[in-house]
Amino acid sequence: MEFGIIGLGRIGSNLAIHAAEVGIRAVGFSKEVTNLDALGRHGVQVAAGLIDLVKSLHSPRVIFLSVPAGPAVDEALDRLVPFLEPWDVIVDGGNSHFRDSIARFRRLQKNKVGFVDCGTSGGLEGARSGACFMVGGTEDAVARAAPVLMKLAVEEGFFYAGPPGAGHFCKMVHNAIEFGMLQSIGEGVELMRRSDYRIDLADLFHAWSHGSVIRGWLVELMERGLREHPDFSDVPSYVEDTGEVNWALEEAIEKEVPMPAITQSVLALFASRGGGSDAARAVALLRNQFGEHPFGPRPDIAKMRKTGKVGGWKADEAA
Amino acid sequence: MEFGIIGLGRIGSNLAIHAAEVGIRAVGFSKEVTNLDALGRHGVQVAAGLIDLVKSLHSPRVIFLSVPAGPAVDEALDRLVPFLEPWDVIVDGGNSHFRDSIARFRRLQKNKVGFVDCGTSGGLEGARSGACFMVGGTEDAVARAAPVLMKLAVEEGFFYAGPPGAGHFCKMVHNAIEFGMLQSIGEGVELMRRSDYRIDLADLFHAWSHGSVIRGWLVELMERGLREHPDFSDVPSYVEDTGEVNWALEEAIEKEVPMPAITQSVLALFASRGGGSDAARAVALLRNQFGEHPFGPRPDIAKMRKTGKVGGWKADEAA
Repeated sequence: MEFGIIGLGRIGSNLAIHAAEVGIRAVGFSKEVTNLDALGRHGVQVAAGLIDLVKSLHSPRVIFLSVPAGPAVDEALDRLVPFLEPWDVIVDGGNSHFRDSIARFRRLQKNKVGFVDCGTSGGLEGARSGACFMVGGTEDAVARAAPVLMKLAVEEGFFYAGPPGAGHFCKMVHNAIEFGMLQSIGEGVELMRRSDYRIDLADLFHAWSHGSVIRGWLVELMERGLREHPDFSDVPSYVEDTGEVNWALEEAIEKEVPMPAITQSVLALFASRGGGSDAARAVALLRNQFGEHPFGPRPDIAKMRKTGKVGGWKADEAA
Repeated sequence: MEFGIIGLGRIGSNLAIHAAEVGIRAVGFSKEVTNLDALGRHGVQVAAGLIDLVKSLHSPRVIFLSVPAGPAVDEALDRLVPFLEPWDVIVDGGNSHFRDSIARFRRLQKNKVGFVDCGTSGGLEGARSGACFMVGGTEDAVARAAPVLMKLAVEEGFFYAGPPGAGHFCKMVHNAIEFGMLQSIGEGVELMRRSDYRIDLADLFHAWSHGSVIRGWLVELMERGLREHPDFSDVPSYVEDTGEVNWALEEAIEKEVPMPAITQSVLALFASRGGGSDAARAVALLRNQFGEHPFGPRPDIAKMRKTGKVGGWKADEAA
């Protein structure tokens, strides 16, 4: 069994090394290769160019793309297709938009080259030791790619989702659920850090990983992250993302599916990126206009806030 | 080792049976006992009354309450306290408000009876075969209850959170995170069911349980639930809850912690409870006032919606 892999970044390299370890001949190519020694040591063959990679594989070839979603995928297809033969299959293992994957499937169909859109989950560890794959494509294309993918997947972690685009559609939804979960965990952490208790959060997440309803990989990773950053303030309050969750919101709008929690998770990403909020500025401006409320914090209210008495509602104390 | 358990509902019974199985002498009492045979078969002793239960345990006693949060807890305390001795400990294993637990700790302190607030997670299965406990209380009270609780917990699933209230505070946050996760999964399911793909959701959740980033118990339970209800329409679109997540929102408001995703999860619970929305009625009324837009669906727009062309924006087609 053999496969080619284009893109030897962190995920691509780990997949290639994993493949070599499970007895798949892996031939990789990347514009930049920073870990040639490690790849070689694990038995991954690195081709000098795309054409070399194609030539060094036997037809029908399975070529896995591990490149960023967007133009890099099309560029790889442009360069590969002239050298491919009918029955070869390209697997796009990145986070492409499922509608782009449908378009790419149609384009390759004209050259009788198969196309499989493959949502890849499990992070760097999954790539290295067994990932979760959600794949879309025609049955014959998937059938040709499946033997390799099933060996790279963790046991039971391979799912044939349906026709072209279905794999990347499932990955888009997976990532939307993931961001909702991340944000929920994040909000819980903030509530605990702002409480009057001094809770050892790493130990709490450790216990939650053992028997609680919310146990799972993200809860385990939260413990690990908290132990690596016990101070927490050294973690920037800025969240980057690669856009898939925005697509999920667009899809929700098109299908009129209310997704309030996931939507808020995405909006929280935007808010994390700083620069203040023009909405907050507009609210402050309007309060200033109608009530001459001053800009910025008011020391007297800040003081009340500390004693939990903003608004001055006293029923609790009277009771 | 021995303990008393008050409340032999589904959780309480499972905890008592589990205790008996791991070699703890378990004496239970409940106003209603529907599974006396099963309890007896597993070696759980059922007392005829609260006083019998107290008398049948050696001091210092550990008595676990598995009753609904609220008046039932105070009622149990009222009836128990006169018969308890200094150094006895009551463990409230339910979802009480952590501020109530602080008040109850203070009340029992006057009688020199210990109080441990114990957040219990893991569902019925956890109660039966190993739960996750987050406990709050003074060190000496927790020290007296810990040997029993650590045997009832799954390995590594016992966490001493801090002073009185800290255990139920952690459970409140746990449940808030849980509802954010539930809602995120729910929104993903709805987006997939409304897509043009016919995805086998049970198989997809099965794959997600193997190697994906979102793997965890809730993803496993979603698979199990989907297999038990393949039709899905037999599951009522109504979500009940027991109020802890509302408390988390109140806490977030008091501490001014933005919790948008968890807040939306709670609001989604309310929306699920039907009867339509007066906010939607008000919006329809205002649209009718300013634009004479008719009430209810407009067939022409409903038709456009099916073809994805509401709003009439055509750039996609022109491109």
